[in-house]
Amino acid sequence: MALIVKKFGGSSVATTEKILNVAKRILGEKKPEDKIVVVVSAMGDSTDNLITLAEGIDNQPYRAQYLREMDMLLTTGEQISIALLAMAFQKLGHPAISLTGSMIGMRTNSIHTKGRILGINPKRVHEELEKGNIVVVAGFQGADKFGDPVTLGRGGSDTSAVALAGALKADECEIFTDVDGVYSADPRIVKNARRMKEITYVEMLEMARLGAGVMNPRSVEMGQYFNIPIHVRSTFTNTAGTIIREDYTLEDKDFEIRGVAHDQKVAKVAVLGVDNTPGIAHTIFAALADANIDVDMIVQSIRNIEKNITDMVFTVALDDLPEAKKVVDAVAEKINAIGVLVEEDVAKVSIVGAGMLGSPGVAARMFGALAKANVNIDIISTSEISVSCLIKASQLTEAVNSIHDEFFAD
Amino acid sequence: MALIVKKFGGSSVATTEKILNVAKRILGEKKPEDKIVVVVSAMGDSTDNLITLAEGIDNQPYRAQYLREMDMLLTTGEQISIALLAMAFQKLGHPAISLTGSMIGMRTNSIHTKGRILGINPKRVHEELEKGNIVVVAGFQGADKFGDPVTLGRGGSDTSAVALAGALKADECEIFTDVDGVYSADPRIVKNARRMKEITYVEMLEMARLGAGVMNPRSVEMGQYFNIPIHVRSTFTNTAGTIIREDYTLEDKDFEIRGVAHDQKVAKVAVLGVDNTPGIAHTIFAALADANIDVDMIVQSIRNIEKNITDMVFTVALDDLPEAKKVVDAVAEKINAIGVLVEEDVAKVSIVGAGMLGSPGVAARMFGALAKANVNIDIISTSEISVSCLIKASQLTEAVNSIHDEFFAD
Repeated sequence: MALIVKKFGGSSVATTEKILNVAKRILGEKKPEDKIVVVVSAMGDSTDNLITLAEGIDNQPYRAQYLREMDMLLTTGEQISIALLAMAFQKLGHPAISLTGSMIGMRTNSIHTKGRILGINPKRVHEELEKGNIVVVAGFQGADKFGDPVTLGRGGSDTSAVALAGALKADECEIFTDVDGVYSADPRIVKNARRMKEITYVEMLEMARLGAGVMNPRSVEMGQYFNIPIHVRSTFTNTAGTIIREDYTLEDKDFEIRGVAHDQKVAKVAVLGVDNTPGIAHTIFAALADANIDVDMIVQSIRNIEKNITDMVFTVALDDLPEAKKVVDAVAEKINAIGVLVEEDVAKVSIVGAGMLGSPGVAARMFGALAKANVNIDIISTSEISVSCLIKASQLTEAVNSIHDEFFAD
Repeated sequence: MALIVKKFGGSSVATTEKILNVAKRILGEKKPEDKIVVVVSAMGDSTDNLITLAEGIDNQPYRAQYLREMDMLLTTGEQISIALLAMAFQKLGHPAISLTGSMIGMRTNSIHTKGRILGINPKRVHEELEKGNIVVVAGFQGADKFGDPVTLGRGGSDTSAVALAGALKADECEIFTDVDGVYSADPRIVKNARRMKEITYVEMLEMARLGAGVMNPRSVEMGQYFNIPIHVRSTFTNTAGTIIREDYTLEDKDFEIRGVAHDQKVAKVAVLGVDNTPGIAHTIFAALADANIDVDMIVQSIRNIEKNITDMVFTVALDDLPEAKKVVDAVAEKINAIGVLVEEDVAKVSIVGAGMLGSPGVAARMFGALAKANVNIDIISTSEISVSCLIKASQLTEAVNSIHDEFFAD
């Protein structure tokens, strides 16, 4: 017997035909003794349609005063899809029951439209499973201490599925998505990228941080917290996907790295000709922190050793660049820097893998691969399980492919 | 200070523009110290659209196995309209909060899609009123002991509004509808029908029983039970409507009758040539009762006094006629009746009024009015507060007008 939580996104349940297909697929894979909980999102565009309705009342429906009512409105989206999916199971001959976020005991804080899960008391879910029901649960939503509906923030459906799996002590949480797993690199860039059978929570979080978009980091953290294996699978095929878990159980763990990630939404900022005196770095980065701007790769390079003048170079998210430029220009004037340069034509390429901890030379192999592809490295930064290089954006495809070839060639 | 419950139906909230208009109207009428609870139905056709969705899963979505999920589905309709109406109040500058049937403590039985209210614990409603909110409540729905959503049967929104008004000990329950009150006769038939300022629960129930369609009888009973005045008003005008209450408070109580009701959906059944022996009537009507067919006007007339043979004539609802005919044919054979005649071209016209109890001659005036219009009376039946005559359907308009002229001419 296995207790499995399966999560399907909005595109998988966009029409009643697709809802019937999801039900068929689940019943086709279900062993008689399995207990199944299905977490679903709202049908296709239905959330957008609800938002459009709200805009009929006020064209800015996300103003603070409206957020509770927006949650009252938006939670109907999943309530519709769970009712229909439960009916679909019944139509196909299997007992099923739908439960809202409130009914599964998903308790959240009261930050409407961006709720966080405080805890789950899934008594009702256990009871319905015991009765032989497939339990169909509304993702993306819970209720606060007043019993008011609250929607979770971005990636909320994945997070509720994993958190529910944790509270139920499920054997696995399957996340059905439009890709069939986690790849060693973005398959749109690297033709022979390989699907990884397993990856650790820590690596997956690092991949996500460095630009891989498969899983919402919050749900991976939730999986790690509850130690629930998360199986990322394709909605469209029956093949096994990638299991995100605490540690490897399969032999393909002998790759030294787990993946090559990249991120094009970065920009470089250089503060030129800064006195290398104590407190200068703090002045620059405190100003950025005050403006709520995350700084990523930082390098300080010597411009003139006799005058003790350096350049301070770092990266920020591309979206933050206009604000960052404003902040840094002001600081540069104050500290008498020679000038500020920004560059948008940059990208970050990274290798990730817990294995590199015990394998010296991994970083060197990455740099070698970049040299082979004639790619110049602008900045390097490292963590315990990753190495990142800032390069020209125009060279990203060659860079990712060359690094991938170096580590994943058969 | 007054605590008023106001109910608006689906056509009043069919679009976001109409929702904003409802909010404007309520704020326009509200005195600063008034506490307002608004009960709303689902927007326009939205319930039908939800049913169409369910038909995408199974073309018979009202099969017993689906009913719980149908309620899960259908309750989203009102949840959408309450969220939008609460936002509309906020947009117009008045604090408001929406609450579902479950959240107002509306406890029902578990007869899904045809639930009955068991009780209401409106603690949350009181709390929100105390905070200064206009409370916007989903009509037509409650929750059973499991916390599962349950929709009420026909006329459910009116019933939930009146029941909530009762539980809140409200001063009045206003039902906004497409007519502006209860009329002395159907204004589509009688041009100078007058809007009654007041009518008693008992009279209104009798009017409804005899064919007047303004209010669902269940909600009138609920008003009577809680002794909550029900004010039937027009959605489209600001004029006062009709108040349904225990007893009159205004002088227009000196009409001897309150209204002329009519019903075209009746049919006549005659069992001809029946032996007038004990138990024959019981044989006929017990068979009809077993088939769940309500019998209305009954008259037994002597066909042959020497042979002691009678005709047994009665009316049934037109919809029940085919089934009634089948039942009666079988009985007639068994009791050796001469034959069975049915007639569909009949209608029932009635006068209703508690005043007639103390006014002898009211019935005679009705018969006189019918005679004046050259209308033949087929069957007569009376209750304490009504007199009904079965007539030819083709003479209905003249009959109703002549009776109305008799009692309501100025």
